[in-house]
This record gives sequence, structure tokens and C-alpha cells, in this order.
Amino acid sequence: MIYLDNAATTKPLQSAVKNYENLLTDCFFNPSSTYGGGIETKKIIERSREKILKLFPANYEVIFTAGGTEADNTAIFNYSKRGNIVTSKGEHSAVFESFNELKKRGLEVRFANLNEDGSVNKQSLLSLIDDKTTFVSIVHVNNETGAINDINDLSKSVKKKNSSVVFHSDGVQAFGKIPYSICDSVDMYSISAHKIGGLKGTGALIKKKRLTISPYIFGGGQENGMRSGTENVFGISIFGDVAKLHYENIRQNYQEVKKLKQLFVDNLDRENVRILSGNNSSPYVLSLSAEGLKGEVIMHMLEDFGVIIGTGSACSSRHRHSRILKECGYRDSVLDGALRVSFIDGITPDEVIFACEKLNECVKKLKGIMG
Amino acid sequence: MIYLDNAATTKPLQSAVKNYENLLTDCFFNPSSTYGGGIETKKIIERSREKILKLFPANYEVIFTAGGTEADNTAIFNYSKRGNIVTSKGEHSAVFESFNELKKRGLEVRFANLNEDGSVNKQSLLSLIDDKTTFVSIVHVNNETGAINDINDLSKSVKKKNSSVVFHSDGVQAFGKIPYSICDSVDMYSISAHKIGGLKGTGALIKKKRLTISPYIFGGGQENGMRSGTENVFGISIFGDVAKLHYENIRQNYQEVKKLKQLFVDNLDRENVRILSGNNSSPYVLSLSAEGLKGEVIMHMLEDFGVIIGTGSACSSRHRHSRILKECGYRDSVLDGALRVSFIDGITPDEVIFACEKLNECVKKLKGIMG
Repeated sequence: MIYLDNAATTKPLQSAVKNYENLLTDCFFNPSSTYGGGIETKKIIERSREKILKLFPANYEVIFTAGGTEADNTAIFNYSKRGNIVTSKGEHSAVFESFNELKKRGLEVRFANLNEDGSVNKQSLLSLIDDKTTFVSIVHVNNETGAINDINDLSKSVKKKNSSVVFHSDGVQAFGKIPYSICDSVDMYSISAHKIGGLKGTGALIKKKRLTISPYIFGGGQENGMRSGTENVFGISIFGDVAKLHYENIRQNYQEVKKLKQLFVDNLDRENVRILSGNNSSPYVLSLSAEGLKGEVIMHMLEDFGVIIGTGSACSSRHRHSRILKECGYRDSVLDGALRVSFIDGITPDEVIFACEKLNECVKKLKGIMG
Repeated sequence: MIYLDNAATTKPLQSAVKNYENLLTDCFFNPSSTYGGGIETKKIIERSREKILKLFPANYEVIFTAGGTEADNTAIFNYSKRGNIVTSKGEHSAVFESFNELKKRGLEVRFANLNEDGSVNKQSLLSLIDDKTTFVSIVHVNNETGAINDINDLSKSVKKKNSSVVFHSDGVQAFGKIPYSICDSVDMYSISAHKIGGLKGTGALIKKKRLTISPYIFGGGQENGMRSGTENVFGISIFGDVAKLHYENIRQNYQEVKKLKQLFVDNLDRENVRILSGNNSSPYVLSLSAEGLKGEVIMHMLEDFGVIIGTGSACSSRHRHSRILKECGYRDSVLDGALRVSFIDGITPDEVIFACEKLNECVKKLKGIMG
């Protein structure tokens, strides 16, 4: 199998899983217990927290959550209470649907337009900010096109217009992949473990220490009172390891994956497959369209060759067309043929070439059948 | 090690963990993906759901969450929007703190008194229900004293006073342990995996199908639109297995654990250690007090002999005294000496006798030291 749907989820890093197997056997204690075993599991959580904290400026802290979606919800529902709130038309559902919910609840919600590559149109974004804006959320890397938003620049510009805005970014597709340090004007940042070799069910909200947050989930007061519920110690521990590892090799991986993506692009039958991702998009994501054909059919044809790619966001698989690609301005025939190839370090050039050739073949074949 | 803090968390069931190890290696796909691997992981989730559904009447459905706490929060914040809401003074923090939060938000919140054994005083509860009551939440088994509330009876009585009430119960300490079938007047029921050999980070809200619920976490629309976020497939799969196993043996385990508890009680130095749990409490929980001594010191002394017990709820370990035992009416000297011994099937009688003898010794020794 050649797995090229790493933006949907990644294979857990076996060494990290092995490192913490004892949490499922001997060291299974409740981290809130004050006897030795409880203290030990608590320490394991704290060590994971430190590993992640090291990747952010010193004035930030980590709230572990059950995933990127809960992290987004925690940020959004905490700071979207009055005035107007602003996001983009290119957000992951976790942000987009939360804003839609707030709209239903009567809040004034504004959506900035996208550029053709899926990045947020800065002018559009800034035009929506006024003195009543309280909260802004902009995705760091678009999960479908891979467009990178310069969230440091955007947050600074937003705060130049209104300094009291709280700025959040969904960093799920950027964290551990894009070499980037968030600056002080980014107040909160959501990350997820299973996009970088960790487990599903673990994520975190990174937030500025001085920013008060009321819990989104109430109870036993875990996570320093900010997120209750017995901690998913196994997932949290693995998260720390894979985050550390990804950052130790982030530039090297970035270059490696960039070459893989370029290799794919170089081998692509551009007459039949169109590239939707922009030139400056994340090397980890390549958005394509076999215009006029059905992306889903091509995906299944490729599956027969052991090549796994996506058709867009897994989280939006219920919808016929990608909401985000639609907002990029593509017509239906392009949306129909949408495909997403997403890379990770460790894939070999041979695998990339094989996958691309099979894609070319499948598209050509389907085109022939469709006449 | 003799582990007798099974109300805090249980050792994961190794056979169930082994059964699903492939989800961490080969079958790691995103359950929302529509290619073979994605569909396979989705099926694994659905099989787990079916196993749990079988344990409830046909008109209920399962929403998987990140744990019992999130399940409680989902139920409470969905149905606590107007009128008054009622709970008891014996709730787990997940319910208690959610009600406190709603009080802060201006809702009228009412707390029913407890009987001495920690069970909810029915008369007090019913006196709080009026025609403006919209929501009631009563714990099934008290996590500190083990008191069992007959939630079928209580919910029926509540609905006799006001039929429009939505009734929820936190079943975390009952599920898989107490042979009990919830009746139609219980609308929602929270359960957790890690109290019955599953993993931390997995739980579920069981709800009546016809009861509409708006998501507590918004996003990709997983869990039939009711709880977004990529599913914790590993945790969910194990949950189904351990739930099934516990129910297959529930009466047998109940009798076995009942004998273990009785054995402990029979060997207990009743002159120095007082039993706080009532006669009809869950066999899985035994609340004790070495009056006048510090429970925490005894807990640590026992730890040196490899005997692990708790001092009360792990989730309340930050507080000096147990909120619940206080509500049972005990004076400070009893609260100081509080201990919780919690059982599970598989513990041997010899282990129970050893643990109890060591407890007797430690209490006697500490009493001697304290003069």
C-alpha cells in the first residue's frame, strides 16, 4: 500500500506507541491519584506537555483536549460572546460549523473570502474587522488545498485595526510540518496528534498564559481547571514524542516532502489533471482535479493498485462538493474531479512515481470510458 | 501490587487491547474516508456501538465521547436552558461543576439532599421538582460511597410531578457493574470505558433516539452529527469489547465482588475503622474512615506494602475534604480519615485479606504514633 492521504490521518509512529505501551499494562493509574502510580502517570503527562511547550514561545501554555476539533471549539466558544466575530470561508469544519452555530445563536458572524489557491484574502479579511470585532479565527494551513496563511502577518494586521481582538488559528495541518513560529499576536492555536503520527483522540489548545479561559468541559478540574475529564494518558504521551520528533526534523522533512510533491507534479499528466494547490502551498498537500470526471471513482480505481489518496477533507465526505474548493471559485466540473494527495516524510520517490503514474493511467482510462 | 482503587480507574483488559492493536499499525485510517481502509475503521466503530446498544432498550442510541465527563456535559448543557434544573449534592464533579457553571450563568439550580449513605433523599429531590423544572440529573452509583440510587424509580417519580422533565443519570460507576436496566423515564445515561477495563479518553452518552440533541462539539459531523472530531477508534473499539464482556458476566461478577467486599468487611478492625458505605451500596465500592487519622497518610503507608487504595474521588484530590461525605453529614474527624477501597472481579480472596490486614495494622500503628 502507498498511503497518500496523510492530511486525513497518519499512521501512528510505532516507536512512540511502543514507548508508552506500559501505560496500557502496568502504569494504568488515574493521574489525579496521589499515590506513587498516580503521580507517575501525572508526570508522564507533564513531560509530554513540556515537549510541546518547547515548540512555542515561553508565554504560552498547553491544554490537552480530545482533538483539534475540541481545541477549536474551546477557543471559539470562549471568546465569541458579543460584538462580531470573523473567520474565513476556507476553514476546517471544526471552525466553520462552530461559527455557523454561533450565527444561529444570534451572533454577527463574518466570513472572509478566499483567493483562488484557498488562502485567505487579506483585504477581504481586514475589511470585516471593525471596533466591535471581538474574535478572529484563521486556519494556518488549508486542509484541502494546502494554502499557507501567514497567520503572524494576518493577526498583526487584524490587531492594528482592533487591538482588543482575540486571534485564534487552527494549526492542525501546519503543526509539526511547516517551520513556523507563531508571534505574540496569535493568542490561541489548535493542534492535533493524529496528523503527525500520534493517536486519534488527542489534541491541544495552545494559548497565551495571560488569556483567561473558562473550561469548555466542566468536572474534576484536570488540565489546571481548564479541561475536565480523566486524561487520555496514552494518547497524550505519544503526542509529546511525535511532536518533539517532528520538530527536531522539521526543516529536513519539509525539504524531503517538498521534493516528493515536486516529483509527483513533474510526473503528472497535466493535460488531464489540473493542479489546484498554489505554488506556495504546503508541500504536504497537493490538491488536484481530473476535470469532468468523478474524483471518487478515480480514488477507488487507484485503490485497486494499492494507492490510497483522498478526494478532499475526510471530515466533509458527506457532502457532494468541497465547500472550500467551491469558495476558491471553481466550477462544478472541477469540483467533481477533485482529488487530494497528501504526503509525509518516509514515502519513497519510487512510491510517488508509481502512484502518479497509476493516477495518470486511471484518469486516462476513465476518460476513455466516459467518451 | 494489590490494586484496590478500581473506582478511580481500572487496568485495561489485555485481551481487548490486543484485539485492536492493528488499529495502531495497519488499520489506522480515518473513519470518514470512503476508501476500503476508511470504511473498515468505520465498521469497527459501528460494531462497538452495536455491542453497547445491545445493553440498552431498543429506543436508545449511543454517542461516543472522550469520556464520562464530556457525556455528562453534553447532556446537561443541552437541556439546561430555562426554568429550573435539579440535581443532588452527591454528584460526581462532572455533573456538580456543570450545574455550578449554569448557576453562574444565571440559571436556577437546585441540589437535593443526601441520606447518610450518600444516596439521594427522594423526598428532598421531589420537593425541588415543580412545573418549571426542565432537567434533572441524578447519579446512578455514588463514586465515593457506592450508594445506589434507583434511578428508574426516581425518574418515574420526578416525571409524575412534571412529565416534561428530561432526566439524565451519570452511570459511570454503575455501567458494567450493577445488573440494572434503565427504564423509559431515564432519557440519557453517561458511561465511561476506563472504569471497566477500557481506555481513558473514551465514553458515551446513551440517549433516547427521539430526544433531539444539539452537538456539544461542532465540526465534521461525526457521530451522526451529534459529536464532531475524528473518532478515537482504538479507544472506542476496546470500549465495545469490555462492555460486552462485563455484561456477559455481570451477575456472576457482582456476586464475586460482593463476596470480596464482605470478606474485607469481615476482616476489618471495626474498632478503629468505620464503614461509611450503606448496606445496599455497590459491592464495587467500600467507603471507610479511620476517624481522627489522616486517610492520605494511611494510603501511603499501605502503598509501602504494595496495597493501593484511594482516599475518595481521584477527581476531587485537590480538596481537603470530600464534598460528598460532608453532605452525608459526617464531622471533620471522619472526613479526615476517609478511605475508599474499590474492587473489581479477578481480585483473589487472599489479596483482599492481605490488604485488609495491612490496613488494620497501619491504622493501629498510626493511632499509636498519634497517641
